Amino acid sequence: MRVFGIDPGSVRTGYGCVETDGRRHRLVTCGAIVPPAAAAWPDKLRVIHDRLLERLRAAAPDCVAVENLFHARNVRSALVLGHARGVAVLAAVEAGLAVVEYTPAEIKLAVVGYGRAEKPQMQHMVKLLLGLDTAPSPHDAADALAVALCHVHTGAAPGRRRAPRAERSWRHVRLPIVRRQTP
Amino acid sequence: MRVFGIDPGSVRTGYGCVETDGRRHRLVTCGAIVPPAAAAWPDKLRVIHDRLLERLRAAAPDCVAVENLFHARNVRSALVLGHARGVAVLAAVEAGLAVVEYTPAEIKLAVVGYGRAEKPQMQHMVKLLLGLDTAPSPHDAADALAVALCHVHTGAAPGRRRAPRAERSWRHVRLPIVRRQTP
Repeated sequence: MRVFGIDPGSVRTGYGCVETDGRRHRLVTCGAIVPPAAAAWPDKLRVIHDRLLERLRAAAPDCVAVENLFHARNVRSALVLGHARGVAVLAAVEAGLAVVEYTPAEIKLAVVGYGRAEKPQMQHMVKLLLGLDTAPSPHDAADALAVALCHVHTGAAPGRRRAPRAERSWRHVRLPIVRRQTP
Repeated sequence: MRVFGIDPGSVRTGYGCVETDGRRHRLVTCGAIVPPAAAAWPDKLRVIHDRLLERLRAAAPDCVAVENLFHARNVRSALVLGHARGVAVLAAVEAGLAVVEYTPAEIKLAVVGYGRAEKPQMQHMVKLLLGLDTAPSPHDAADALAVALCHVHTGAAPGRRRAPRAERSWRHVRLPIVRRQTP
């Protein structure tokens, strides 16, 4: 199974593809798409979309995993991030791929085993899990690989949509309640 | 000159094309794209993108005008709106068209002559300016036509990008300062 992770951004869009036989994982490709800084924002969106579609067709994954964000610095930055995320997901649909989403906490939990892990820990685990000599560069590529590895680790079958919201909330919310009941 | 206005939204994306000889304006086409409610959000984005690209190619405008939003209910809704806005603007770029942006206040000022005009006033003026018997329906189409009429009224040449930020701010901000200096 091949999973293609995307970390969309208006300035840099990270991507990374991981292949797995269920036990061992291998890096297929990774990198970042950086539209020319001087380009107008509509042209930047086209660069992100077109380059991503090329990479998706070259890597031929079974599905695409993308981070699900509920937080941004402000409404303006959420809108700008939304533009990049929208065209990235459109490229995945155009490539005939199902899109799965994971929250940052789900990704950290699946890759590091701790939902509040820091960035260096994540990069270290991505390096270890893929048997690389150095952490993937740039960091956007490492973030995209982490999303792909999250999908691999949750044991989801190719093309499976993420678990319904209620089920996911239960998993994260119940733990502290159980702890509080322990004497 | 033909101007194609877009009012993007994840549930409904309004569009409207206006033709002008510089004095009189004529409605070319208008409507709303409504992706199936049951579809997954990535598929909805594809419906918005593909249908809009069809409409753009059929209307053959000189440029595309879109509302520039800095406000949303919250970060989550800004992100969702950003998805729709991103794929809408991508369709414009793919159709080889320049994209111009106007703030809600600029649109109201250009169409009604008052930057804080209410929605019914806007719909009424869109109807009058295009010589229609009834206000364009649905209201998303009227909103899209208002953006197109704003570009027509500001006298911008086809394909001209909006004025730089500093110039626009000056126009709106300077007036109260001058008033305060008047005895």
